[in-house]
Amino acid sequence: MDRINLFEKFESFNEHGSPKIIGELNGQQVKLAKFKGEFVFHKHDNEDELFMVLKGKFKMEYRDKTVELNEGEIVIVPRGVEHKPVAEEEVWVMLFEPASTLNTGNLVNEKTKKQLESI
Amino acid sequence: MDRINLFEKFESFNEHGSPKIIGELNGQQVKLAKFKGEFVFHKHDNEDELFMVLKGKFKMEYRDKTVELNEGEIVIVPRGVEHKPVAEEEVWVMLFEPASTLNTGNLVNEKTKKQLESI
Repeated sequence: MDRINLFEKFESFNEHGSPKIIGELNGQQVKLAKFKGEFVFHKHDNEDELFMVLKGKFKMEYRDKTVELNEGEIVIVPRGVEHKPVAEEEVWVMLFEPASTLNTGNLVNEKTKKQLESI
Repeated sequence: MDRINLFEKFESFNEHGSPKIIGELNGQQVKLAKFKGEFVFHKHDNEDELFMVLKGKFKMEYRDKTVELNEGEIVIVPRGVEHKPVAEEEVWVMLFEPASTLNTGNLVNEKTKKQLESI
């Protein structure tokens, strides 16, 4: 019920590719992440995923096209669709997705984060 | 899967208190709304509700306290908690809540919007 300041939360961590939980509602979680570089193609079989750019920009690559996302833009990746975020420079992103969503979806590799920190 | 620019969407309507649907995921909807003035105290018995300020500011009044929200801040109002948004000047807000959520919750009055437009 209290105010959450997104930029204060972003200032509180520096790791890339390690989403932090800042809120939960209706079985969904709100997460903040800093990305830099190229992620891996993956999909979530049962979960749709929203990305919103708060600072910077990145490209969402699909198998058949690429969408460039800038500050103040969102994209919803439907369940089952393979996607790969790519950020040339650091980007600050808010994620909205079910609490069950694993960052690497159907893949489990060195980028997988099973236990997310709440901040 | 395509980019949604929030500010372009906000520029496309002027009504106050009439949320517009811009996306849907996992049974939840993403809505944009412009508020000005005082809403009514209401609650949602089965739905948590997220508000994020994109432009301007407003106060979320609860029965026992008030939280002021500025740009880049979010608040999650848990199910069952009475709340009343109050905006002295126009504020642009993104909402995240279940597709079933009615803007006036347990009340049905002249502010109730049963059919929301998708933009």
